[in-house]
Amino acid sequence: MTAGPSSPVFGPEFQDQLARLLVWRRDVRRFRSDPLPEGVLAQLLDLAALAPSVGLSQPWRFVRVASPERRRLVLANFEEANAEALADYSGAKAALYARLKLSGLREAPEQLAVFADLEPEAGQGLGRRTMPETLQYSTVCAIHTLWLAARAAGLGLGWISILDPGRIARDLDVPESWCLVAYLCLGYPQEEHADPELEREGWQDRAGGRPDLLTR
Amino acid sequence: MTAGPSSPVFGPEFQDQLARLLVWRRDVRRFRSDPLPEGVLAQLLDLAALAPSVGLSQPWRFVRVASPERRRLVLANFEEANAEALADYSGAKAALYARLKLSGLREAPEQLAVFADLEPEAGQGLGRRTMPETLQYSTVCAIHTLWLAARAAGLGLGWISILDPGRIARDLDVPESWCLVAYLCLGYPQEEHADPELEREGWQDRAGGRPDLLTR
Repeated sequence: MTAGPSSPVFGPEFQDQLARLLVWRRDVRRFRSDPLPEGVLAQLLDLAALAPSVGLSQPWRFVRVASPERRRLVLANFEEANAEALADYSGAKAALYARLKLSGLREAPEQLAVFADLEPEAGQGLGRRTMPETLQYSTVCAIHTLWLAARAAGLGLGWISILDPGRIARDLDVPESWCLVAYLCLGYPQEEHADPELEREGWQDRAGGRPDLLTR
Repeated sequence: MTAGPSSPVFGPEFQDQLARLLVWRRDVRRFRSDPLPEGVLAQLLDLAALAPSVGLSQPWRFVRVASPERRRLVLANFEEANAEALADYSGAKAALYARLKLSGLREAPEQLAVFADLEPEAGQGLGRRTMPETLQYSTVCAIHTLWLAARAAGLGLGWISILDPGRIARDLDVPESWCLVAYLCLGYPQEEHADPELEREGWQDRAGGRPDLLTR
């Protein structure tokens, strides 16, 4: 193997710690309201930009949602979508759904809307002729990178998808070519857990163990 | 902060190493042909299954493509899609595109087709009423987790999207509800780099530095 002079080797101790990070990464909906330390958000975005992207298109676009008026619009969007979702369930399932806390929109000190630019100049179309959705997938890689880096820094991240995405784009007044991929809450978590809240609350178990692997 | 007795703290040394992993994670197309050690693929899939998923739907479905006949079908699919992509460019750009090595399909010892099940039982629909594409996004999180874990173990991963995705699903004979998200090559890399091959080859520069952050 040809390796550059500074090519790193990641030893078993780091690999164990990385596995521990993956185990303790959670979707957080219960935040403390104290702000992030100065500069931390910028550091996390630097790391997110190291994510892979199709044809090096780097299509991720981050919007920091800070004004109370914009946050109110997002909260109203979530509450309407969540009420409609609740109406899809009935009986005990509806009662359980209604008890779940599905967003930290009222408490999280930082909120980010993350878009994919579907017409990026960078990359010149490479790799996305037959699978244009790889622009959104690249943006998901940046979000997941941000998530892991946040957890490593003691922060929690929550991904909210119970929203009308087109309405978010309009309410935040972003360019026409931007497509909402995720709305994120970020802050210090009130609690740390190795198991998902949806599992603790009895909504859904994890499969447990290895995913099925077909062979062809 | 309430924290369980074993809730981990990730110190600055781990955070630095994680940043180094993100810097050295590459999309690899130049593989050595020697196989993965026994058990390593299973370990990587265990870690991938720790990824976040919408409503705990765990929609990722992995198919190990091992037979020479199936691999030939995938290679033919790639070569046709790549020839069509080349025809979109002209002049110096076309000449450069033709020189790029865009897959390791002939050499990589392991190949995985990764699908999202668009009708998973798990999760009971939670979180994906208005954004059903979060099933594919969850699968991307599992792929990105696999990617980082592979790099930490000294392996390289390459994501191929220059393919007709429906044809892959048919050629691999998977259930109707499965949607191809990525076709992955996995193996030991011939070379290690901190910069992307597309940048070294002059196709596309990285933006460099922090992504733009709008505030609203």
